Amino acid sequence: MENFADRLVRACAEKDSIVVVGIDPRLDLLPSSLVRSALKTHGETLEGAAAAFAEFGRRVIDAVAEFAVAVKPQSAFFEMLGPAGMEALREVIGHAHQAGLLVIADVKRSDIASTAEAYAQGYLGEVKIGSTVLRPWGADAVTVNPYLGSDGLLPFIRCAKEQGGGVFVLVKTSNPSSHELQDLIGAPKRNPARGGAPGRPIYERLGEWVAEHAADLMGASGYSSLGAVVGATYPEQLARLRELMPRNLILIPGYGAQGGAAADVKCALDKNGLGAAVNASRSVIFAWRDETRSAAGGEKRWMDSVRAAARKMRDELNEVRR
Amino acid sequence: MENFADRLVRACAEKDSIVVVGIDPRLDLLPSSLVRSALKTHGETLEGAAAAFAEFGRRVIDAVAEFAVAVKPQSAFFEMLGPAGMEALREVIGHAHQAGLLVIADVKRSDIASTAEAYAQGYLGEVKIGSTVLRPWGADAVTVNPYLGSDGLLPFIRCAKEQGGGVFVLVKTSNPSSHELQDLIGAPKRNPARGGAPGRPIYERLGEWVAEHAADLMGASGYSSLGAVVGATYPEQLARLRELMPRNLILIPGYGAQGGAAADVKCALDKNGLGAAVNASRSVIFAWRDETRSAAGGEKRWMDSVRAAARKMRDELNEVRR
Repeated sequence: MENFADRLVRACAEKDSIVVVGIDPRLDLLPSSLVRSALKTHGETLEGAAAAFAEFGRRVIDAVAEFAVAVKPQSAFFEMLGPAGMEALREVIGHAHQAGLLVIADVKRSDIASTAEAYAQGYLGEVKIGSTVLRPWGADAVTVNPYLGSDGLLPFIRCAKEQGGGVFVLVKTSNPSSHELQDLIGAPKRNPARGGAPGRPIYERLGEWVAEHAADLMGASGYSSLGAVVGATYPEQLARLRELMPRNLILIPGYGAQGGAAADVKCALDKNGLGAAVNASRSVIFAWRDETRSAAGGEKRWMDSVRAAARKMRDELNEVRR
Repeated sequence: MENFADRLVRACAEKDSIVVVGIDPRLDLLPSSLVRSALKTHGETLEGAAAAFAEFGRRVIDAVAEFAVAVKPQSAFFEMLGPAGMEALREVIGHAHQAGLLVIADVKRSDIASTAEAYAQGYLGEVKIGSTVLRPWGADAVTVNPYLGSDGLLPFIRCAKEQGGGVFVLVKTSNPSSHELQDLIGAPKRNPARGGAPGRPIYERLGEWVAEHAADLMGASGYSSLGAVVGATYPEQLARLRELMPRNLILIPGYGAQGGAAADVKCALDKNGLGAAVNASRSVIFAWRDETRSAAGGEKRWMDSVRAAARKMRDELNEVRR
């Protein structure tokens, strides 16, 4: 399979878009007719809720496919429904591929050695059963958490290299409390700098690690499929991290509902407006919920609303990409 | 539901054991007759492999139930088989409960706000679908990763409080590269200590956070269901963290195959030999693999071997608990 970074960069250029749409279904926020219909067929069961999630995911994908380059299903919401939810996640991944979209599985997994390898093979790669080779999830890229150190990251990089997959390391996350650990000024114990120089923020250290390993997954596009997650809600740190990671893809969450704006992400883009992708979830997939009482039609025409929100996001971002 | 710490401490006292057995199935390491039989029934499919995992998990549970207080299924290996693997995970959890064991789902999840809440509700709690309330996974406790800060931890604590569940925060993990991030000496940016005092290791800061929040999940046993994961492979840090976290449960992985020994964990136990639980995976569940050519019988009597390894581990640990 072709290098993930190359596939993403090409999709961004061809579609003239850097939009990623997060698929974060929540039963109490879905269109009520869609939920009613799924529960009518399957009963008030985990399978019923999962059928609603799968249907919602498919329709969101159909609505945004023209304006987005990728979707980012949030595993937590699917896992919340047990194995049936996981089956819905797999259906959503398959549907996104049929619609020509890349899939970034937002799993934020963290483990080590053979266990990290199992996650990587499952989400990005293949599993051999007897003499049969199967792709359990078939995602194009995953998000991973770096707290366990390189033992937890290198197995993902190795698998991504074999499979043409992408790996986005959480470096500076978009949430309010991300500073608690990620912004600490850190230095190794024996570093002589400790007595004088101030050390560097943890997120910078991780950014350096990600930059150092860029070559392992470098694409012909000049970008590496080893990427970083950096929140749109922290534009200063985003600018600094782009300096430190000139060749890594950056996945930028926190756009829209979380407060990030188009101007905040410009610093992560190259002169062609490429090298980063921006995710919004709620502000796109639940756009219609704010319109229920308005002339736009609300729930009745919710797919139109999702489609319009994705187009608007693309256009806003393209303003700063020129 | 009764507080998790109280349930765990009581089980340790009643069974005179602090053993947790990790359920880490891997197709190439399972008893070959068991795999053959599952693939014969289900074909060379993910379902076939998942059936082998479920059967292996059930039999390991039956073999160790007398000597262990809990099992710790490693989600990665089940997820590697897609949704079918997740169904096997659910079966293993249910079987452990039937066998009277607690279940710590080793998921190491990390996310924020409503997303963290979804993970917590899924693994520890309940989901409401229409007017029906269901328990998707039914684990007693989960492992969580702290990289995202308290936004990512508090939703788990809230759910655990409602449900009588347990939460083990990764503080100092057992793997060789855990020092890269966890041992950095960290200080807040504006801390005046920065010019003089040396700051503290990241794992100590997290240990303090865990200790500060112990009261949120305190049990009648005097232990909190807000626990920490600290590897047996780092006995000095374990001793230091026990000082910092006198009332938190400690889950200690890294025993056996990873190199931790009974003497290394003594410092985490109170005068009654309680307050911590020790996990081994490979050295118990694959004990028979080292014996294949020996008089012990190897694969043919693999359950006997697993049972003997669990008993031996219990006895070794009880030596240092007295």
